[in-house]
Amino acid sequence: MSDYVPGLGGIVATKSAVSSLDGANGILAYRGYPVEDLAANSTFEEATQLMLEGELPQQAALDAFTKELRADYAIDDALINMMKALPKDMHPMAVLQAASSVIDGVYTSEQGSETYNKDMTMRLIAQYGTIVAAWDAIRNGKEPVAPRTDLSYAANFMYMLGGGVEAAEADVRMMDICLVLHIEHTINASTFTAMVTGSALARPALVMASATGTLAGPLHGGANERVLNMLHEIETADKAEAWIDNALKNKNVIWGMGHREYAVKDPRAKILEKLLRQYGEDKGAVSPLFGAALKVEEICEARLGAKGVYPNVDFYSGILYQEMKIPVDLYTPIFTMARVVGWLAHWQEQIADNRIFRPTQIYIGAEKRSYVEMGKR
Amino acid sequence: MSDYVPGLGGIVATKSAVSSLDGANGILAYRGYPVEDLAANSTFEEATQLMLEGELPQQAALDAFTKELRADYAIDDALINMMKALPKDMHPMAVLQAASSVIDGVYTSEQGSETYNKDMTMRLIAQYGTIVAAWDAIRNGKEPVAPRTDLSYAANFMYMLGGGVEAAEADVRMMDICLVLHIEHTINASTFTAMVTGSALARPALVMASATGTLAGPLHGGANERVLNMLHEIETADKAEAWIDNALKNKNVIWGMGHREYAVKDPRAKILEKLLRQYGEDKGAVSPLFGAALKVEEICEARLGAKGVYPNVDFYSGILYQEMKIPVDLYTPIFTMARVVGWLAHWQEQIADNRIFRPTQIYIGAEKRSYVEMGKR
Repeated sequence: MSDYVPGLGGIVATKSAVSSLDGANGILAYRGYPVEDLAANSTFEEATQLMLEGELPQQAALDAFTKELRADYAIDDALINMMKALPKDMHPMAVLQAASSVIDGVYTSEQGSETYNKDMTMRLIAQYGTIVAAWDAIRNGKEPVAPRTDLSYAANFMYMLGGGVEAAEADVRMMDICLVLHIEHTINASTFTAMVTGSALARPALVMASATGTLAGPLHGGANERVLNMLHEIETADKAEAWIDNALKNKNVIWGMGHREYAVKDPRAKILEKLLRQYGEDKGAVSPLFGAALKVEEICEARLGAKGVYPNVDFYSGILYQEMKIPVDLYTPIFTMARVVGWLAHWQEQIADNRIFRPTQIYIGAEKRSYVEMGKR
Repeated sequence: MSDYVPGLGGIVATKSAVSSLDGANGILAYRGYPVEDLAANSTFEEATQLMLEGELPQQAALDAFTKELRADYAIDDALINMMKALPKDMHPMAVLQAASSVIDGVYTSEQGSETYNKDMTMRLIAQYGTIVAAWDAIRNGKEPVAPRTDLSYAANFMYMLGGGVEAAEADVRMMDICLVLHIEHTINASTFTAMVTGSALARPALVMASATGTLAGPLHGGANERVLNMLHEIETADKAEAWIDNALKNKNVIWGMGHREYAVKDPRAKILEKLLRQYGEDKGAVSPLFGAALKVEEICEARLGAKGVYPNVDFYSGILYQEMKIPVDLYTPIFTMARVVGWLAHWQEQIADNRIFRPTQIYIGAEKRSYVEMGKR
C-alpha cells in the first residue's frame, strides 16, 4: 500500500502522449506544439484534429474533418425539447451535463457500430457549442438559432449566441484563440474524471457528462466567473489599486491570479494579454471593466510577479467574454466546449490500454461490531 | 513521482470511515456492521441513515429520517416533462444521469443555504427510484405513477414500477435486501468518480450524475444484465451443465462468477443465495430461467469454488429481478438507486477534508516541436 497523498498530487495515473506541461519554464504543449504557436497560427478545428490524431493535418484531411464537424453542428429535436422542459434558472453547466447524457440517447441505434466512438467524438465536440447557444436562447424565451455549416466553429457559435447575427471578425478570432488555449491542460480533475468514467467503458457521451460535472466545480472551471464578479466590485481602473491594497491586507483572493502548476507566467496568459491589449486599442470604446481589468493586471504583475503570481488564463478570458457581452454564467460552458476535445483525446488513450480505476483507502472507521436491535440502542 | 500503477490498484486515494472490505475473509462492513447482519435485520432506510450519519439510529431519529425521505419521493414536473422529450430507446442509465443533473436545476433557489447539502442528499436518494420508475412508464407510453408516502422506499419503488399495484410482501423484502446489499463497496470506480467530481466542489446532483456515468459502464455496473442474457442462452436447468462445459472449454466468461476483491465467497452472495432458494420454494411456480440459474450456481460452486470462483452479488440480484419480471435494462439503475447512498457518504467525507484531485502523468508523446505551416507539412 502506498502512502496517502491527498488529491493524488505527484501520483502517476497514466502514460499519455496528449500534452505536456513544463511549469518551471511555462511551456504547455499539445502533442509537442507549444500552445502559443497554436494560438498564433492554428484554429480550433486544426488544433482539435491535432489533439485527436496526433499530427497537424494536411489540407485535404483538415477540409474533410471540418466538413464532418460542421455536418454535426445541428442538435436533435429531442435535445431542444428536453431543454425547453428545464427550469429557466438552471445553471448552464448543469444543462450541458444533462444534454451530454441525452446525446447518448439520440444515437442508440448506432451503438456497437465500428465507427461509433469516432462518430460520437465528432458529435460531442460539434454539439456542445450548439447546446450552450440553444440553452441561452431557450432560457430567455427565444427559439434557438439553427447552426450554419458555412461558418467555423467559433464563428458559428457566436452567430447562434448572437441570435442569428454574425460576430465581427476580430471577435471571432479572439473566441477561436480562447478555444484553442482551453483545449487541454494535462491530468486535471475533469480530465481525470473522463479517464475514470471511461475506464468502466461507459459510452463517450456519458463520459463527457461526468467530466462536465467536475469542470462545473468552482475549484476547477468556475474561476473565470469569479474574476468578473471581482471586476464588477472594482468597477473602474482608478479604484483598482485601493481594492488590491484592501484584498492583500485582508488576505482575500484576487481571482484569476496564479496557477499551482506554474512557477512563471502561464503561457496562455502571455499570449492572451498581448492580444487583448491590441483588441482593446482596435475597438476603441471598451467598457470601464476592461480598463479596470488591465489595471489589476499591471498592479499584480508589478507587485506579485516576483512571487510567481501572474494573471492566469481565466483572468484574460473573463475580460474578453465580458467585453463581448457574453453572460457570465456561460464562461465555464465555453471553457467546456474547448476542453471536451482534451477529454476525448485522453478517453481515446484510456480505452486503448484500459484498466478500470480502483484505488484503495486507509480505513479509519468503526471496528467490526454486531448489529444492535432497535430497543437496545 | 510514483511508479505507474494502471488503474491505481493499491494506491491510497482517501482515508475513509464509510466501509471496509476484508477480501481474504469475505467480510464487507458498512460503518463496522457486516453487510449480512444488515441484510438480515435492517432496512434500506435504516442502512441509509447509518451510512450518512455513522451510527444506527434510535427509533425517533429513524422515523424523522424516513418521513423526510418519503416527503422527497415526488419529482418535479420539470423532470417528468424532460423525460417525455427523450428518445424512447434511450438507456435508463443515460436517462438517470441526465435526470440527476436536472435535479440540480429544480432547487437552484436554495443554493448557498445552510442545509443545502443535507437537503439535496435526501432528495437525490429519494428521487432516483422515482425517476427510474417514471422513465419505465414514459418509455412505454404511460403516465408515471405518483409515489406513495405511506410506503417504504422498496415498496414504493415496486408500486410505481408495477403501474400502481402494490407488490407482494416477499418481493418487497427481497428488493429491500438487494438495495441494502448494493449500497456500498469501498473505493470502486464510480465511488472514486464521486470523490473526484466532488473534490472540485461541484454541487451534489452533478457529482451523482458523474458517478452514475461510471456505474453505467459494462465493466462496473453492467454485469447483472449480462448474467440474464447468459441465462436466456442456457434456457433451462437441464442444459446448464453442457453450456458450462462449453464455456470452460472455449474460455468464455461465465457472467456473475468471481469478484476481484474476494478470495472467498462474496458475503453478499452468501445471504442472497440462501434467501433466493427460500423465495423460490415459497413461490412454487418460478420461471425455467430461475431453475437454470440455481443449476449454474451448483455446478460452478462444485467445480470452481476451490479456485475462489463463486457466484457474486450480480448473479443473484439478476436472478431475483428477472423472477420479479423487471426489465433487464433496469438492473443497473436499481443498483444505482442503492449505490447513490454510498456515493453521498463518500462525497460528504471528501468535501469535509478536501483537496482537488490532480494526479500526474508520464509523458510519452512528441518532443517539443515547431509549428509547420500548411504548405510545408
